[in-house]
This record gives sequence, structure tokens and C-alpha cells, in this order.
Amino acid sequence: MAVTNTAITLARRPRGRVRESDFRIVESPVPDVGAGDVLIRNHYLSLDPYMRGRMDDSPSYAQPVMIGETMIGATVGEVIDSNNDRFIPGDMVTGFLGWQLYAVATRGRGLTKIDSRDLPMTAYLGAAGMPGVAAWIGMTRIADPLPGKTVVISAASGAVGSAAGQIAKIKGARTIGIAGGAEKCAYVVDELGFDACVDHRSEAFASDLAASASHGVDIYFDNVGGKVLETVVQLLNPFACIPLRGLVSQYNEVRQHGLDNLQAILSNRVRMQGFIVSDQLDLWPSALADLSSWLVAGKVKYKETIAEGIESAPSAFIGVLNGENFGKQLVRLGP
Amino acid sequence: MAVTNTAITLARRPRGRVRESDFRIVESPVPDVGAGDVLIRNHYLSLDPYMRGRMDDSPSYAQPVMIGETMIGATVGEVIDSNNDRFIPGDMVTGFLGWQLYAVATRGRGLTKIDSRDLPMTAYLGAAGMPGVAAWIGMTRIADPLPGKTVVISAASGAVGSAAGQIAKIKGARTIGIAGGAEKCAYVVDELGFDACVDHRSEAFASDLAASASHGVDIYFDNVGGKVLETVVQLLNPFACIPLRGLVSQYNEVRQHGLDNLQAILSNRVRMQGFIVSDQLDLWPSALADLSSWLVAGKVKYKETIAEGIESAPSAFIGVLNGENFGKQLVRLGP
Repeated sequence: MAVTNTAITLARRPRGRVRESDFRIVESPVPDVGAGDVLIRNHYLSLDPYMRGRMDDSPSYAQPVMIGETMIGATVGEVIDSNNDRFIPGDMVTGFLGWQLYAVATRGRGLTKIDSRDLPMTAYLGAAGMPGVAAWIGMTRIADPLPGKTVVISAASGAVGSAAGQIAKIKGARTIGIAGGAEKCAYVVDELGFDACVDHRSEAFASDLAASASHGVDIYFDNVGGKVLETVVQLLNPFACIPLRGLVSQYNEVRQHGLDNLQAILSNRVRMQGFIVSDQLDLWPSALADLSSWLVAGKVKYKETIAEGIESAPSAFIGVLNGENFGKQLVRLGP
Repeated sequence: MAVTNTAITLARRPRGRVRESDFRIVESPVPDVGAGDVLIRNHYLSLDPYMRGRMDDSPSYAQPVMIGETMIGATVGEVIDSNNDRFIPGDMVTGFLGWQLYAVATRGRGLTKIDSRDLPMTAYLGAAGMPGVAAWIGMTRIADPLPGKTVVISAASGAVGSAAGQIAKIKGARTIGIAGGAEKCAYVVDELGFDACVDHRSEAFASDLAASASHGVDIYFDNVGGKVLETVVQLLNPFACIPLRGLVSQYNEVRQHGLDNLQAILSNRVRMQGFIVSDQLDLWPSALADLSSWLVAGKVKYKETIAEGIESAPSAFIGVLNGENFGKQLVRLGP
């Protein structure tokens, strides 16, 4: 059958802000399914801030996307053809198959079968997937959110932040979110059960945060960097810990703003630890077991923003970088 | 006997650069030696960058020196009068007795008897004292300078840096110093045995460092912060570690320059750990046992710059903040 694939490729490297014209929509025949290969029809694509880094060719832990290549990304979809004993048509799988409707997974590599009876398939791109594992590693392997401690989480309504805060609550810590706008802050407290949430867009942000964290901050799970990081650092307690998971406020900036107040890191004997979720694949089974049980029990909740159709991916991705999404940003690819 | 003490007090808080007029020389009678107290004639005073922080009243891990109070500091001297069973006249002791010729240690608190047969008494203010322990904690408890790793140390000819680099060499790592000027760099390589040393005052500093650390940097023991930190961070390898011991380049600055390139911390999964040597008093016996044996065996060497007379302490301290001292800065107080 001559099925047509639709993919979104990188047309050029952005300098500073990403624009829709940095991407191109490309149609092409679906490739042949070779020996051992598996053909997948993607149902959902995950859009995540780390993708901004792959659009640059500066040195990084990961290869950049080349000009003309399909944008990379995590996906969930259905096996529609298989020359591989491990998969049959109808299997639902997660993969890293990129911004496209169809993909051939060579020898089935990178595919994981999922059971969509317990959880909706989109959960495997969020709280039961990479974002959830990132939150779990930061909150159980880098920081130790014991009762009595105060934990602050930026991008608290997002996929990683919302899971991180709920894990901190499960562990017994006092949990304060930071989010952009009153609606997100209300959601973080009312739906996710954080003890408080502070709006970083408010002019009173610094004083609001100081009032909420009146005993100082013991753990700061950072997804954003920039002004928010600089503000939280002023409130750190001695021996505080900063799991550094993302710097989304800086990804579109040509000139980076890091952290001026290193004296607070030194004086308070702070441990700042950068981490990348894909480093620690050995931890994924433990993380996913915890996350799945918490999701099924309703102890971890999440929100999704779903854009319709692959053509909407570039604008939805630009929205993610601007904090316009509310919860996990996905794109519905079909069918 | 009516002996006159000479002390240097804080006259006013500096804003930015320290000036000699921020200090005052004060004469007063030596206080009475009460029950349980010990009177010490100080022989040497240690001058260290951390003292700059105590001249400010901004929040810190330690109390500031009050206006009119004697400047604090580590000392080594001789017991000349004692109402305490643990000390007799003639005992040599280290203490934290400040910028003054005489001091009464209430109940003998904070005094440690030293044996000046094995090591010169000044060593107890340097490689066998607080600076040596700081180097030891950073290089054995925070970082792990295994063979095959590349270790970079700033302020490499200083009291902490020189010990840190020699410990890294003892542990088998490749060790690169950073120091100010050709004379210090030659000393770091020729006398201390570092594998290389790069002059941060050279216009070619960044490229010289990149050439020396051609396999990247696994451990950066930082004493200075600022431009040097920013330069080293560009060379970090994945999973690098930064024991953050000091930020001397910033202590005289009104506007702090921290670290812009946090993306390098995140992408490389770097652990940055601020630490204060006085937190870990339980580690001092192990540290001092190692350091003493290395000193006696000639595996750890050090250099001292000794200013003569208590009146020279303010200008010598300003020199420390400007990097003008070469090795450990001491003041000979007498007799």
C-alpha cells in the first residue's frame, strides 16, 4: 500500500526565539518495513522544552537535529505492520519516533509496549513517562523531601513540575509551586494539592514567595532558571539542594542569564545537581512502578493540553517555550 | 603586670574595596585571667579571604564583626598564664583569637595544643590547619580525583589551592593549576608538582586552559569564582564536580558576577557543592592525620608570605584580596 507520511523537519536553526518558519512540513511515502522492522502509526507526540536545545548545533549531551531531518520527540502509537516477533499489529507502543504520522522502528528498537487499560495512553508521555521519571529522580535520588522540609518547584503546573510537587507531598514535605498566572496557581493548589503556589508574573513575586516560604527553602526543583532561580536562591536554607532539571526561561535567549548570587550557594553549602533523565535508564523500572501506582491511586494527577493535527506542532511548541501550555503539551496525530 | 595589648578593630564597613581606613589600631590593657581562663601571646595571625565577608553585615553563615570589635582570625601562640588544668605556660596553641597581640581564652575554649617539633608552628595555620582541611574535604569528601581524571584548581599557589592540587596528585589525577602571573605558575609546576599551570592574567587564558585540559575538566576546585569559573565551566566533562570553596574575585565587588552558563551545569549533569570547613569538625582528625603525614613526608609543600608586625595586617589583608600574596599570608605578631 502506498501510504503517505507527513513529517515536520527542521528548516533552519533559530537564533533566539523559535519561529514557525524554522520548520517545514514534508510529505513522503512511508518507508518499507524491512526484516525485523516495525511500522507504527503515531497517535500522540509529546512536545518538551529540551527539543529547543536539539535545534541548535552547540555542544550538548545529545546530537542536534540536522537541517532537513525530522524533529525528534517521544510518541505513543499503534503497530500497524511488523516483521518482528516481539510486536504484532494492534500493539500500543511508546517510542522516540519524532514529529511524524508514521515511522519504521528498525528492528523494533526503542519501542516499549504499554498497557492502556490501567492508564490512558497519553499518560505514558507524561506522568508515567519521561517527565514523571525526571520528577521522580530529582525528588527521590537527588533531593530528599522529608517532613518538615520546604520544597519549591518552578513550572509547577507543567508535566515535570506537577509530578515533582506531588511526589514531595507524598514524601511529607511542605510544597510550594511557582507558576505563571492565577489560573495555573489555583490549579496547582486546588487540584494538585500543593500547600501554596506563587505567580512569577506578579510584581510581588519575590515578597509573595518569601511569605509562603517563611522558614526558608530546603529543596528547589528548578525547571526554568533565570529570574525565578535568582529569587529562590535568596531564600535557601543551609544545606539546601537544587535538582537542576531545566532552564526553559533561557532556551530562547541569545545571551544567557545564569545565577549571579553564587555566594548564597557557597555560604549555605548548597548542592546544585544538573541531571538528565536518560542517563539513568536503570532507575526507570522503579520510577515507573511508583508513578503508575500513584497515578492509579489518584495520588499523582496531571493535566494535558492537546493540539490537533501535526500541522499544529510548531505553534504548540513555540507556546511551550513561552509557558502558554497548561500541563503536558501533546499533539494528537490521529488517526 | 600591666601589659598593653594592641588589637586591630573594624572601624567601618567597607562598600566594595577594603581600605586601610576601614580598620583602627587600638591599645588597651590585657584583660584579667579569670578562673579557668588562659592568656596567650599570639605569635602568628592568619589572613584569609573569608574575613572580607565578616566585615559586611549581610546574612551569612557566620556573625559579622561588629563595628569597634577586634577582627577575627586564626592564630598560633604561646600560653603565658593559665588558670586551666589543661594548659601551662610555654604550651604552644592554635586558637581563633583575632588580630591582636594578646588574648584571654575563656575556660581555654577553642585552644588546641600543637607539637612544633614535627612541623613549624605556622604550618598549623596553613596546610596543617583550616586551609589544608578545606582542601582535604573538597578533594576527598566532595570530589574523587581518580587516576585518569583532570582536576583544575584556581588560586593554585594559595594556601588552599596548593594543598588541593597536591592531594589530587597524591590521589593520581592529572592536576592543572590556575594562578596569577608567571612566577606563581612556575612555582605551582616546579615546586608543587602540578602537571601544568595557566596564568589567568594572560590574554590567552581561555585558550591556554583549553590546551592544557585537552580532555576536558572532571573536577574544578574553585576558590575564586568570576571570570575564571566561567572559563573553566566551558571545559567541563559530563558528570563533572565543582567543590565551591571560595569566590575571592567577588568579595570586593558591589555587583556580583556569578555564573551565566548554567546550561553547561545542566547539560553535563554537573554537581556543584558549596562547603565551609567549619561544618565538618568530625572530619578534622582524619584530615589532619593525612595532612601531617604528607607534610612530614614532603608530599605536600607550601609557601608563606609573612608580614611583619600587627600594624601591617590591614595592608597585607588588602593584598590577599587582590591576589598579591604568594602562598599562605601570615602576620608575625611577635614576640
